Order: sequence, then C-alpha cells, then structure tokens
Amino acid sequence: MANYAQVFLGTAFTSKSFSEVTILKDFLYCISGDGIIEQLFSPLDEQYEAILKEYEGKGNFRRLSNDEYILPGFIDLHVHAPQWAQAGTALDLPLEDWLNAYTFPVEAKFSDIDFAQAVYEDLVKTLLANGTTTVLYFATVHKQASLLLAKICSLLGQRGLVGKVVMDNDDQCPDYYRDADTATALKETEEFIIEVQQLNEQTKQGVYPVVTPRFIPSCTDEALQGLGELAAKYNTHIQSHCSESDWQHGYVKDRYDKNDAFALNDFGLLQEKSVMAHCNFIADEDAKLFAETGTAAAHCPVSNVFFSNGVFPAKHIHELGVDIGLGTDVSGGFSPSLYDNIRQAVIASRMLEEGVDTTISADKRGVDSSRLTTNEAFYLATAGGGESLSLPIGKIEENYAWDVQIINTNLQNGKLPIFNDPLEDIFQKILYLARPENIREVWVQGEKVHQR
Amino acid sequence: MANYAQVFLGTAFTSKSFSEVTILKDFLYCISGDGIIEQLFSPLDEQYEAILKEYEGKGNFRRLSNDEYILPGFIDLHVHAPQWAQAGTALDLPLEDWLNAYTFPVEAKFSDIDFAQAVYEDLVKTLLANGTTTVLYFATVHKQASLLLAKICSLLGQRGLVGKVVMDNDDQCPDYYRDADTATALKETEEFIIEVQQLNEQTKQGVYPVVTPRFIPSCTDEALQGLGELAAKYNTHIQSHCSESDWQHGYVKDRYDKNDAFALNDFGLLQEKSVMAHCNFIADEDAKLFAETGTAAAHCPVSNVFFSNGVFPAKHIHELGVDIGLGTDVSGGFSPSLYDNIRQAVIASRMLEEGVDTTISADKRGVDSSRLTTNEAFYLATAGGGESLSLPIGKIEENYAWDVQIINTNLQNGKLPIFNDPLEDIFQKILYLARPENIREVWVQGEKVHQR
Repeated sequence: MANYAQVFLGTAFTSKSFSEVTILKDFLYCISGDGIIEQLFSPLDEQYEAILKEYEGKGNFRRLSNDEYILPGFIDLHVHAPQWAQAGTALDLPLEDWLNAYTFPVEAKFSDIDFAQAVYEDLVKTLLANGTTTVLYFATVHKQASLLLAKICSLLGQRGLVGKVVMDNDDQCPDYYRDADTATALKETEEFIIEVQQLNEQTKQGVYPVVTPRFIPSCTDEALQGLGELAAKYNTHIQSHCSESDWQHGYVKDRYDKNDAFALNDFGLLQEKSVMAHCNFIADEDAKLFAETGTAAAHCPVSNVFFSNGVFPAKHIHELGVDIGLGTDVSGGFSPSLYDNIRQAVIASRMLEEGVDTTISADKRGVDSSRLTTNEAFYLATAGGGESLSLPIGKIEENYAWDVQIINTNLQNGKLPIFNDPLEDIFQKILYLARPENIREVWVQGEKVHQR
Repeated sequence: MANYAQVFLGTAFTSKSFSEVTILKDFLYCISGDGIIEQLFSPLDEQYEAILKEYEGKGNFRRLSNDEYILPGFIDLHVHAPQWAQAGTALDLPLEDWLNAYTFPVEAKFSDIDFAQAVYEDLVKTLLANGTTTVLYFATVHKQASLLLAKICSLLGQRGLVGKVVMDNDDQCPDYYRDADTATALKETEEFIIEVQQLNEQTKQGVYPVVTPRFIPSCTDEALQGLGELAAKYNTHIQSHCSESDWQHGYVKDRYDKNDAFALNDFGLLQEKSVMAHCNFIADEDAKLFAETGTAAAHCPVSNVFFSNGVFPAKHIHELGVDIGLGTDVSGGFSPSLYDNIRQAVIASRMLEEGVDTTISADKRGVDSSRLTTNEAFYLATAGGGESLSLPIGKIEENYAWDVQIINTNLQNGKLPIFNDPLEDIFQKILYLARPENIREVWVQGEKVHQR
C-alpha cells in the first residue's frame, strides 16, 4: 500500500466538464508528501476499506463531519493588490476620477515598504479566508514592494503569481507614479523575474513572476516589445488588460489601427501562459487569436459593472474555444470573494441574456443564449482558472494539487438553510449562500494555510 | 434631566435625504423606555457633558469602541418566508419550472406546523443576524402557519408584517396548493387579521397583519374585491406583486385591458400602506398612480435578475414621487442580506445606465441617468423602507424607533481594509464589504435581539 502523507474522507464537489459537476460522495483523498492528490477512492473501490482501516485514527487522517464538504480552492485571475487599501470606496466616480483621485495616489504609496507590508499581508490573509488558493496579482511599479508581495504569498502558503507593473508612457501616466524610464522598467522587471524565480525554488506551493504591462495605454512600444522578449527569455506568465472599456478599446484602435488583442500579439504578449483581464469588447477574430495562442481571459463580473461599460459575453467567448477564469479585480471590484464573483458571473450573464431596459420589447431586449449556469460559473472559478494559468489546479482529481476549502454548513451563526436536501442542492446553497465564516479550513499544496 | 432607559455613545450613519448621508460623530443616543430615540446630542451640544457624566459607568450606558459604528436596522419589503427552505437552488430554471417543481411544492409543505416552525425560526434569526430589523413577509395560504410566523417575530423581537397568502384562482394555482374557495380565503384572512392585531397588543416592537393577494393571476376578482374591503375595514397594510415580468404584465393586460397598477387600484388595493413588489414594467402613469395613492414599490434587485426579464428603473420611478424600499425576495433572490441587495441595487442601476451588449455602440447601449449612488441604495434599505411602510423607522433621528445594527470593522477573521480612512470611506467600506460576522449587535425598539 502506498505511503500517503495525508488521507481525507468526505464528500467533494468538482467540475467534470464546463457544465457538469461531479459529486465525490464519501471518497478517500490520498495526498502525497509534495501536496498532490495521488489517488482517489470511491466507497465502491476494492481498496477503500483497506486504506480506511490503515489510516483511520492516525494523526494524518481527517474524516469530515456530516455538515462539512470539500470544494477546490478558488483561483483569482485578476487582483490589483495595492488597491485593497481602497476597496469599496469611490465606486460612484467616473473612471478618470477614480484613477487620478484614488487609485494612482494609493498605488504610489507603495514606495513605503511598511505600508506595503500592512496592506499586502492583510490582503493575502483575506483572500485565503475567502477560499482563494491561487492568485494572479498586479502589484505596483515598485520592485521592492512587488517582491515583498511574492514573499508574503510564499510565507502564508498562497500560490501567488505576481507582477511588477510597467507604466512608462508619460503621456498616460501621472508624474508621481510611473517607471523612471523605459530602460529602468525593463531592467527592474528582469531583476524581479530572477528574484521571484529564486524564491520559487524555496516555496512548496509555487510563486511565479509575471510580466505585467499595465495596459497598452500606459506603455511605450519599446517597453511592450521588451516585455514580450523577457517573458519569452524566462518563460514567465504574462498579464495585462485587454479591450476593457469603450475608452481603452478605442485608444488602442487609434494608436495601432487594430484591436487590442492583435496589438498585444504583435509584441509577443499573447501565449499559453498569458491572461488578459476583462476583454469585454473583444471581437470574434480577437477571441480566435486568443484560442490559437492559448491566451486566457479573466472575467471580472463585479468590476465590469463599474468601469467597463458592458458585460463580458462569457458564454459566447467560451464557445469560441478561449480559456476563461474569474477575477475579483480588487478594487475595481469591491469584493475579495470569488463566491461573490461566481454569483455575479451568473447575474451578469442573465442580464445580458434578458436585457435591462423594460421599455424595449422582450424579443429585442437581450442577447439570446448568453446565460451561464451555476455549474459553469463554478467551473470558471476553479478548473477554468487552472487551465488559464496552465497549472494542475482547480479540480479534485488525481495529479492535481491538494488546494481545497472545507465548508461547514451548520454553524451556530452561519447556518445554511438545509432541510434534508439532496447533495446537488447543498452544492448550490453553498455557492449562493456561504460566507467566509463557513470556510473552516483552506489547504494549498497539502498544507493547511487557514483555519477558523 | 430626562430619565432615559438607555444611552449609547458612538458614531452613526443615517440618511439626511435621498442622496445625502449624515455622520453623527460621537453622538449620544438617548432611548426611552418604549424604545424610541428620545433625544440626540452632538458633542457640541451644551447638555452633552452633563448627560455623559450622569450615565457613564451605569449599566444602561454603552460606549462603542473605536472600531464600532451604528447603522439603522435594515427594512426588507419583500420576503417569501417559506421559500427560505429552497434559497439558492434551482436558479437555472425558467420561472414556470421553478414555481411548479420547487416553489409550490415547498410552500404546500407548510401545512405541517413543525416544518413551518423549523424554517420560520431559522429565517427570522438569519434575517436578524443580517441586520434586518423589519420585514414584510408573504407566508403561505395556511392560516395556522402564517400565524406562527407572526408569533415567531413577536417572540424573537423582529418587527414583522405578515400576510396569509390568498390564491383562489383554480386556473392559475395547482390543485394541491391553493385556498379551498374564495369564501374560505376571505374568512381565513379576516380571522388572521384579527388574531395578529391581538398579538400586536402584546408585542413591544409591533407585528402587523397584511392583506396579501399573491398576485392578480392567482386570485379571482371576488377575492381581490373582498381583500380590498378587508384592508379598509381593519386599516391593514397590503402587499402583492405588480408588473414583475413580461408574463405577469401581459396576463393582467389581457384580463382587464389595463396595467396591473390600475387593476389593483380598482379593487382598493393601492393605498398609503400598500407595498407592491418588483414593478419592473410599470409605466409612468402607473407610477403616478402609486404616488397619488401613497403606494410603495419594493425593489428586489437580486431576484429581478432571475425571474423578471429586466431592471426596475429605480432612479426614474423615484423621481416620479414613488416611495421605494428594498426587498431580498427570498427565494427568487437567493440572499437573505440587504447588504447584498444594496450592492445589487447599485449594480443593476449601473448596468441599466451603461447597457450590457458591447456589440451596440456606447450611445445606444444603455439608459442615461439611471444610476443609483451608494448613498441612494442605502436610503432605499433604510429610510425608504420606513416611508414605504408608513412607520417611524429607518433613520437615526428623534422620535424614530431605536432599530440599529452595531458594526465592528476590526475582527480577527472579519477585518475590513481600513487604513486611516475618513469616516465617509469607512461608511462605504461597511456597505460594500461587511459580512454578517461584522454585525455584532442588533436592536429593535430598544431591545437587543441579536448578539455575537
């Protein structure tokens, strides 16, 4: 019999396909020393009883209670880490005022490493407490503070993918908050990549550097070109924003006479490990380019309401073969929770399908076949995120990382309304009604990183 | 000096007008024995120090900590209490399947008084734990279970307005779940009104009977007429659904050749204490009839996404002079939280303003001037709810009931991202980021009804 580092017994929910969820009722989950799901056993499997007998009662065996369920840890594909300091504020402002009166001044404060420590540590702990086990972060232009964020992830056990942000276009960036010049931006990005790759060597769950041009408007052509080359040289992930809003989409079209996706591709920024945030205005040909290059879209349904002028047509873009995951987009999105974003992904898709303006007749109000089901939104937050990052995460399946959240549905002050429900309904109640306090434990790569 | 039953010291947020919020920094709140805010004192008031000196240290004095803030208790204008048993499920189904496969069978189970006890007690506790101090409830057709809901509210300290639902139209209601006949429906409604009015005599915070035709499709003309007369005879509140969806709006037009609002008015169902749920499809003339009769609209922004085919144009209807409050509409709306509905009221209004379909040009995509600000959505959940019910609740002001929630922003597992913020920003962070665990105490009519 194999020698597992840990064995769990309980019921889990995980995606089988984009639209289907599998229920692993009373399965055994056998975890290796490096935090991988080595084997799964159903109660019908021949070895089930023998393994149970071998491990039950030992310190590395954990039997879930009747009110506990396992979900994959959530994967957040878009977080502006410094903006956590202002989450929930200024949402009534237009984008330009939001950026200039709030966001850029806040990000500029991350030259202060103590401030960075306070905000980043609080953010990483908060995301873990919300069941988020892997995060793709924008930090700020500051190399030291960006490195600090990677270190905090490493230390607190979260799988962090972190980018030092590049903003070197003095036309579009404020004097007090941008890279000193293009050469410095590229040099610091390269140093950052090397340091984070070294840090990764000592980090069980993985921390990764991400090449991060903020978006095309904030970067010079020279920077974009250099960043594409750095990503290729060091085989890193890449992130940016793509066709987020009317303004951004129009700006890129004016500058290059082509859509954002094709412009990014010209600089070598679309590839298998690229994730582009928002993408609300991408055309079908843009989506096909995403699919061909392996580029993923980070759907940010809460944030899109406030700053993006429309709904990302997730269902349609998925059908064109694009990998899609979810992003909170803290703090364009106020919520650090992917539960909230699963709910809003469903809501936004329904509003796209039904339309919004009741003075228009029903047949002309919305866009048919746009809705995402609950199962599909769950897929985006889990398996879709893993595919987007090209990492073996987001499913409870053999050879995937043991990144999970354990949910208790029956706490004194956090009881879900379960009255003899079938497991299918319990799953939906968890997705729609669970709060952070229902998330009792969070595990990343076989290590417990949060408990309450 | 007056003899107050209780005195609180702390900072509160309350609406000054539809768009403005007042911050009562370090005020004293002096509460009478019957649970009314008798006097408020600002630190600049002459008597402030004398009252502080008189009460500080006594058992009936409470000084909030630096991390605690007072908000008015929230007022939920639309809850289907029995549907709590299925909250969060079946949201992918079309309305007809949702009603026939889930909702009507669940409601029919409330002939079982033990089941009713379990669900209703859990719901009332959950709503209190979410900061909701007053609720306008639809129960079921069953008189005994409806009465039980009123008793549970009375006992647990919530201000409950409860309706025994009338559904007597056998064309539109299933055989297994409707009133026996029209005469029985009216007789049981009258008995219910009398019993709840008696219960109210023994209830400090108030419990009130509500005349409740489910909606026009489920009722005969005779029932609607009789219910209007009962409401007038006993001076009760009235609730129903109005122009919720394409289907409902069209059904009423077919039956009466007029809009829902005018049909309801013909039966005497629109008056000062009437609250109509949803109203997504009401025309301007319908809204003017609401304003003339004093009828309020219960805006249910989460539920509307799933079952209403469009966004309630809250800003526009408010400008026509209609009283508006918020409703969770459990379980068309999955969330029991008015925080979630405040957020969704803002979100829905932004999506109406911006539009949703990014293939349409920006100037034709949405409906200008539709957005609600955060302050306005807060107004709907508090002062707007009080106006809708014609009760002195929803504001922290002299002669209003002491119905409040005390929020702690700095818990070990529930810390809001506050880093030396001004009070204006703390208020917004509370509205967008607070979870039930941040709600440490809930008071109704001067009594503490929830604590954690």
